[in-house]
Amino acid sequence: MRVAVLNRPGEVEIIDRPDPEPGAGEVRVRVAAVGVCGSDTHYFDHGRIGSFVVESPLVLGHEASGVIDAVGPGVDPARQGQRVSIEPGLPCRSCEQCLAGRYNLCPDMRFHATPPVDGSLAELVVVHEAFAHPVPDSVSDEAAALLEPLSVGIWSARKAEVGVGSRVLVTGAGTIGLVCVQVARAAGATQITVVDVNDDRLAMAAELGATRTVNPTVDDLAAALAEAPPDALVECTGHPAVTRQAVGALAPAGRAVLVGMGGDEVMLPLSTIQERELVVTGTFRYANTWPTAIGLVAAGVVHLDRLVSSRHTLDQTAEALVAGRSDAKAIKAVILPQR
Amino acid sequence: MRVAVLNRPGEVEIIDRPDPEPGAGEVRVRVAAVGVCGSDTHYFDHGRIGSFVVESPLVLGHEASGVIDAVGPGVDPARQGQRVSIEPGLPCRSCEQCLAGRYNLCPDMRFHATPPVDGSLAELVVVHEAFAHPVPDSVSDEAAALLEPLSVGIWSARKAEVGVGSRVLVTGAGTIGLVCVQVARAAGATQITVVDVNDDRLAMAAELGATRTVNPTVDDLAAALAEAPPDALVECTGHPAVTRQAVGALAPAGRAVLVGMGGDEVMLPLSTIQERELVVTGTFRYANTWPTAIGLVAAGVVHLDRLVSSRHTLDQTAEALVAGRSDAKAIKAVILPQR
Amino acid sequence: MRVAVLNRPGEVEIIDRPDPEPGAGEVRVRVAAVGVCGSDTHYFDHGRIGSFVVESPLVLGHEASGVIDAVGPGVDPARQGQRVSIEPGLPCRSCEQCLAGRYNLCPDMRFHATPPVDGSLAELVVVHEAFAHPVPDSVSDEAAALLEPLSVGIWSARKAEVGVGSRVLVTGAGTIGLVCVQVARAAGATQITVVDVNDDRLAMAAELGATRTVNPTVDDLAAALAEAPPDALVECTGHPAVTRQAVGALAPAGRAVLVGMGGDEVMLPLSTIQERELVVTGTFRYANTWPTAIGLVAAGVVHLDRLVSSRHTLDQTAEALVAGRSDAKAIKAVILPQR
Amino acid sequence: MRVAVLNRPGEVEIIDRPDPEPGAGEVRVRVAAVGVCGSDTHYFDHGRIGSFVVESPLVLGHEASGVIDAVGPGVDPARQGQRVSIEPGLPCRSCEQCLAGRYNLCPDMRFHATPPVDGSLAELVVVHEAFAHPVPDSVSDEAAALLEPLSVGIWSARKAEVGVGSRVLVTGAGTIGLVCVQVARAAGATQITVVDVNDDRLAMAAELGATRTVNPTVDDLAAALAEAPPDALVECTGHPAVTRQAVGALAPAGRAVLVGMGGDEVMLPLSTIQERELVVTGTFRYANTWPTAIGLVAAGVVHLDRLVSSRHTLDQTAEALVAGRSDAKAIKAVILPQR
Repeated sequence: MRVAVLNRPGEVEIIDRPDPEPGAGEVRVRVAAVGVCGSDTHYFDHGRIGSFVVESPLVLGHEASGVIDAVGPGVDPARQGQRVSIEPGLPCRSCEQCLAGRYNLCPDMRFHATPPVDGSLAELVVVHEAFAHPVPDSVSDEAAALLEPLSVGIWSARKAEVGVGSRVLVTGAGTIGLVCVQVARAAGATQITVVDVNDDRLAMAAELGATRTVNPTVDDLAAALAEAPPDALVECTGHPAVTRQAVGALAPAGRAVLVGMGGDEVMLPLSTIQERELVVTGTFRYANTWPTAIGLVAAGVVHLDRLVSSRHTLDQTAEALVAGRSDAKAIKAVILPQR
Repeated sequence: MRVAVLNRPGEVEIIDRPDPEPGAGEVRVRVAAVGVCGSDTHYFDHGRIGSFVVESPLVLGHEASGVIDAVGPGVDPARQGQRVSIEPGLPCRSCEQCLAGRYNLCPDMRFHATPPVDGSLAELVVVHEAFAHPVPDSVSDEAAALLEPLSVGIWSARKAEVGVGSRVLVTGAGTIGLVCVQVARAAGATQITVVDVNDDRLAMAAELGATRTVNPTVDDLAAALAEAPPDALVECTGHPAVTRQAVGALAPAGRAVLVGMGGDEVMLPLSTIQERELVVTGTFRYANTWPTAIGLVAAGVVHLDRLVSSRHTLDQTAEALVAGRSDAKAIKAVILPQR
Repeated sequence: MRVAVLNRPGEVEIIDRPDPEPGAGEVRVRVAAVGVCGSDTHYFDHGRIGSFVVESPLVLGHEASGVIDAVGPGVDPARQGQRVSIEPGLPCRSCEQCLAGRYNLCPDMRFHATPPVDGSLAELVVVHEAFAHPVPDSVSDEAAALLEPLSVGIWSARKAEVGVGSRVLVTGAGTIGLVCVQVARAAGATQITVVDVNDDRLAMAAELGATRTVNPTVDDLAAALAEAPPDALVECTGHPAVTRQAVGALAPAGRAVLVGMGGDEVMLPLSTIQERELVVTGTFRYANTWPTAIGLVAAGVVHLDRLVSSRHTLDQTAEALVAGRSDAKAIKAVILPQR
Repeated sequence: MRVAVLNRPGEVEIIDRPDPEPGAGEVRVRVAAVGVCGSDTHYFDHGRIGSFVVESPLVLGHEASGVIDAVGPGVDPARQGQRVSIEPGLPCRSCEQCLAGRYNLCPDMRFHATPPVDGSLAELVVVHEAFAHPVPDSVSDEAAALLEPLSVGIWSARKAEVGVGSRVLVTGAGTIGLVCVQVARAAGATQITVVDVNDDRLAMAAELGATRTVNPTVDDLAAALAEAPPDALVECTGHPAVTRQAVGALAPAGRAVLVGMGGDEVMLPLSTIQERELVVTGTFRYANTWPTAIGLVAAGVVHLDRLVSSRHTLDQTAEALVAGRSDAKAIKAVILPQR
């Protein structure tokens, strides 16, 4: 099979590797589509994210879909031919966190495209059968790949307890912000304010469900927030000043979910957190989101295809990894390994 | 002012009474619309509901909207002229239940149209200012009145923990069932099954968001439920056999909310409740639902006007109370006291 | 190894079987103590529980402790010699229920002493390493075995949301009722009422933390409950009339947890459930309770040794299975396979 | 009646004022005991706390108990003579926060001893009858006064979700820390680590239930926390470095409750909050805690009398306000206005 490996920062190579064979309880997926995530680009640029360092050739990609073309021992052979979306982390399923349903916090998680675990930018990939989720035909290959970022949005909305009548503030309108907007709208939020400095992204946010968009370089953000304080914040920028201001804008008993990565520490408004009894938390990937994600897309409530801004072959992986750099309208590049 | 009073079962009289004056913290509302509820009809037919007996002339009606035309001491005079929806119960606001936010369980609740407390079928009604909720112009007078049954639906959905990706079963497609369907759809439920024996109501349910309708007199209900077990049930019929079957159809960890009144006792499937760890609860009115209800209707997510099937003057109150009796398509009769 | 098998109702035989070998991820435990559960006795008497039928010789016992004497591939060899308490069910760890942390609801659960899965009434038993929980020396072998029924009590208390200041009603003072009393006291319940017809058990309940005991054959149960309505019920009798009365005695917003098995159906007070918005649920075994159970016993907060009323060798298994039949003071028989 | 007023920083005067009369729904309490809180001392020293400035003579004191000696219109006359603990804040009971049960977040709260609202350092004080909680004789006058700080502890433990088996970290062993220790123990926490620099306070913490005490000036705090990471933190120092370190020491899915006041902002470990999905929140007073507090003290589970380190007459108010300054063993000074 052909596979794209990151040899060192800036150098992606398309090489041949032997076709992998599925072991017990595993399936082999012929990869149809792989979304490019900011973390893929970060590894491409810098060769590391925090303590995770690319020390040997690494296959990037963790937003993937495809078709099962082989099953290992113990797996129902009828699954061959099934279209699936890949949940890209394999937890140990035995530790305290896993057994409690918080498998995203498993200390032994093996997550795609996180050194030294290879990802899915290949013609074939082998995964545990429980993490290859069947999708109906109403979900396209590209949407099936993007169930991964949608899962981040679903998880964030759960943590923020977004529901009918919620007033939600989403800071940052990249892929994650845009799926958060859609999940918030799907969940019945009646006020969805989106903040970004990119007007193209704000326009997309409005199209996808934002009831109000604010560009703080031209609008008065503080005034906009004061007018109708949100009761839920999904922070997707990781920017310290944005985080501080957005948390401080929450209504009493509001909930802030910090999704955007923004360094080791952050300054938060302590007295406001106390006086309003705000709840602040962060997210680390997701757990148990795929069934919900599939349901939302199949029901036509969330639109993932709308986020795809460019398509690439496996040979064009390097180009895909930086597709967002020069185009302000770019949202999500997708690589199609079978093309 | 003119007011409709129930003198005895079957006898409604339109009489004149002195205009009421708002006391401290109260507002007087010129009533625009009043929805007829099944309980109003039940008092009209039988003169009692359980231990609540009509012993002296009673004003019916507890789904009402209007315009504030006078305010009592301590109320902001600027509220005069405000369009409002009336939340028809006044809790004591001091007992353990009230202080805990469960004011619907207040033992000293004074609820409209529940003997001996008068309701709102009158030209004017006086209520506590906190329970006269301002509505924007995008909410019609009739919709503002029907925020009351919508509140029942919101409350039921909260108890059932309906959210994005929920698979919901609604048994009974009367007014309450139909608002529950809309709330479930607003909350992101991706499967909404509605059961009723009235095909007109099922058609309305489908129009308002049901993804599947089942008429058990012609369809195989058990098979329909087994195919994709719901994880939330909102039971709106009060029928014992329906309740038992519907609870028994829930998926593991499912939640059943019993809204329909159906006698003092009910037989439930104990071993299934244990083996699947189902949660069964009931609802009694609602608490803290109006802001959410207003938000949903103002956002265009829930459509209450669609439920109005007939309109009546105050003089036609008796006719309105039985409007649903002869017309299979009737959903909600509304009385307009200013006409 | 020697093992006690149930050949048919009433016939237990002690036979030799080859020593089992631990597979990958498994450990072999030299069994120190096995508690006798009512379900063991029921299989002994009737050869079945509901749809579970003893069709070939079955090893009973699912409350067990011991010492790891061999480890399979992939298990830390340092675990040899470790004293452990055995959690007696092996879920699939891959289905929707398992991944959500509700592994007790796993449809593919393999549970000890439930046909056709053998239990632990043997000198040796092999289990998954994650379900052999290390215990400190402050927890005796017998207490380590009884962490299983304690888990039922912990799980019930979680479902009942028992906490500081709770007023708890426990109906039935057998082993499960008595551990529920202890968990309620440990959780800070300030009123713990226990109902049973056996005065010896009531005395034990009082010793272990009940603040009030009621024998309904001599005391006025209704009056006792009306005086200070409980906000949590843990029903451990399975008796229909007790269940109905106890649920009906709950305070507004109270929670009823039905633990006792009592047939397929049960009549419940519907109008009371609605008017007080009671929550009714059932339990099926437990999940994620062992760390808590170990902590409570090690801290000296829960006393399991106090429950042991008789001790038996493996040869005396048949006698142990019926030890509770003739002795009103009997609570828990324990079999010690190494004696 | 005699009353202690703070005229200006450092100047407390005992003056005569007319006996207050209870209005509708109010009771007059003959004050038996008043605990001195750090906020009282802060007003005495500085004349302000944040934006709350003492601009006219202010009666301090908000931890009070006594006996009802007169009732206003609408209050059951049988309450005369009742021993009560005073909950010192009167919320509006009509706003969104109040109706939702979060009355501590009421924007119109009138809280004792917070300018311009007078407190209870007087022979008589008038309060709303719902906030004068009856106490049984097993609760002393002094303990009844100290139900107020106990409420802070109960509220913190609720927010931290402390329960059976919790591993709790309490930073700061002043009055609040010491009640938190007791509530954690009452709630079934099996590990309670207390951190303080005052060895006398640590000794008291150990006596009241701490399972481990750490003095960071002599012990290795980081090592102590790493050994068995807590899953709940109740931060009572307000010290920025302590807060940051303690939050960062939490186990995955841990909860941090920031009780100690420590300035407008605080630096928190963002990446740890995200990777472990920690939940951080703050507290502002309490809501619905008195029934629980009374239950705990009446049951003998929490010991408030043990915290009283000095007793004073009303004339000695100034001395009481600074009693903690020179005595390292001082915990809580109590003023007895009837002496």
